[in-house]
Amino acid sequence: MAETVVLGIDIGGSLTKIGLVTKEGSILDKTVFKTESQKPFPFFFEKLKSEVEKLISNLPPNVQVLSIGVGAPNANPYTGMVENPPNLKWGERTPVATVIEKAFKLPVSLANDANAAALGEMLFGAAKGMKNFVTLTLGTGLGSGIVVHGKLVIGEHGAAGELGHVNVNPNGRSCNCGLQGCLETYASVTGIRRTVFELLANMREDSILRSFSFEELSGTAISAAALEGDPIALKAFEETGIILGSKMADTVAHVDPEAFILSGGLSKAGDILLNPIKTSMERKLFKAYKGKVAVVLATATGADAILGPAALAWLEAENIGLT
Amino acid sequence: MAETVVLGIDIGGSLTKIGLVTKEGSILDKTVFKTESQKPFPFFFEKLKSEVEKLISNLPPNVQVLSIGVGAPNANPYTGMVENPPNLKWGERTPVATVIEKAFKLPVSLANDANAAALGEMLFGAAKGMKNFVTLTLGTGLGSGIVVHGKLVIGEHGAAGELGHVNVNPNGRSCNCGLQGCLETYASVTGIRRTVFELLANMREDSILRSFSFEELSGTAISAAALEGDPIALKAFEETGIILGSKMADTVAHVDPEAFILSGGLSKAGDILLNPIKTSMERKLFKAYKGKVAVVLATATGADAILGPAALAWLEAENIGLT
Repeated sequence: MAETVVLGIDIGGSLTKIGLVTKEGSILDKTVFKTESQKPFPFFFEKLKSEVEKLISNLPPNVQVLSIGVGAPNANPYTGMVENPPNLKWGERTPVATVIEKAFKLPVSLANDANAAALGEMLFGAAKGMKNFVTLTLGTGLGSGIVVHGKLVIGEHGAAGELGHVNVNPNGRSCNCGLQGCLETYASVTGIRRTVFELLANMREDSILRSFSFEELSGTAISAAALEGDPIALKAFEETGIILGSKMADTVAHVDPEAFILSGGLSKAGDILLNPIKTSMERKLFKAYKGKVAVVLATATGADAILGPAALAWLEAENIGLT
Repeated sequence: MAETVVLGIDIGGSLTKIGLVTKEGSILDKTVFKTESQKPFPFFFEKLKSEVEKLISNLPPNVQVLSIGVGAPNANPYTGMVENPPNLKWGERTPVATVIEKAFKLPVSLANDANAAALGEMLFGAAKGMKNFVTLTLGTGLGSGIVVHGKLVIGEHGAAGELGHVNVNPNGRSCNCGLQGCLETYASVTGIRRTVFELLANMREDSILRSFSFEELSGTAISAAALEGDPIALKAFEETGIILGSKMADTVAHVDPEAFILSGGLSKAGDILLNPIKTSMERKLFKAYKGKVAVVLATATGADAILGPAALAWLEAENIGLT
């Protein structure tokens, strides 16, 4: 019997990941290449094309590719365009879906990378069987995806789920986006680095983190220090968790989810981050929600980002009757 | 030809409104009676039953009632129960939907009153034709209803859309719900009264509002003062609008709506409230949303609250194939 797979493409600021994924979420084959975000889109596309062709030509003859899912920053699912991506020098509007569709003669779905991650968790990961949940990707920025009654919330303009830009403090940290006090300036890898530097200034405790410059300091270094009991690192995770947990309580008051699913570099700290989040969220929850909302780590997209776009491709294949 | 209507029941803390409503949103007949919230549910139900029977018996013989929609505070649409209503002495869980269904042998849908209002605006009012919008009912408290992709967001536990309890300030005003700094302690009729008293303390300007006690001061009095240019009243509306607008920007980052629809006592001030809301929201919006989200007044449920539950009843009638 012929086996079917979809192609997942995750376009990141530094790396692009592509892979062939079964309906059960098994990755048959995959590859990674540099996005080279400073070069224009046609350059990227030529590289993508040749990598995809290589991957597909290696498939056994009885395996058929049904559709393609693409996760990218600033992607608009309604237009199939990537619009003004701050980390890609592609220009204002790039018709990514159309270009890929023409090249491979397969249905293409495009979604914001963090939204695709939500679908990945729903089909293959920690949100399997859930109808109402929110994923938070705590990487360089804070991405999010909201699922309501089993469907991804896309919104009127294709831009729903930008929880990185809810406001923590109107007079707070300046954000890439031009606003002040956005959640991602606190609750992300970049955010916790800023918090560490604030704490290094305010506290007197010894810390391994005193030996890092701002440029050198990575999320991994902060996590490692926290795991060894470094007081500044622990305090940084605690403050991050308190802020994130309190804003998650606001999100609950919007969509009343069953769970939050956390992924991304910052989430690798596990309970060091989860514990203050849970305590803070629970304290701020409206009574109707108290004790009812779980906070867990991602399983699928935490392991491989292509499972997000692959889930998108599977849902689209189902939607148009290919499965 | 036989005409069809639905019965809308809006149960409020002080008044209960019932009415027979056509598919176009015309009210054929209606009545209002006191909820007498201090008495137990069976007492209320007997009164409701007799008022509904009166209304139905007055209908011309060619008019048929298809279904019943009920809007109530703390209503859970999944269970059909009203749960722990703070302003009704009905006890922990009252099976309102079941009791009404048994009495009238008609399908009954129950929803939170503010959620029903969103449906009312969608079918009969300012949100006609909209797929993504948020209603805010600025009365004694702040109720809300969120519509995503044409459907009301109910959530995992039937409690979505409690925007009155998102947090403005962790050290802010104490709220009925036990939390501190909830949005409804600022952006509601009760909230603006508190703001007026804060301003009377902080400012030195003459104001008609200096002649009111806290108990005497009504939303109408504050609106009237603002319309006459009273500096304290105007400042109170401005501060209220700034706070509400900034939290509405957070809501946009969740669900990316086309518009906010405002109703309730506080909204009667019109542009005096809408202008600071719009300015503040626009300033805080993430760039993907700037200039794209309207803020308008409700038209249907602003005129008559029964249009909310009536819309719920029409949607249910459609859903089960009665139309």
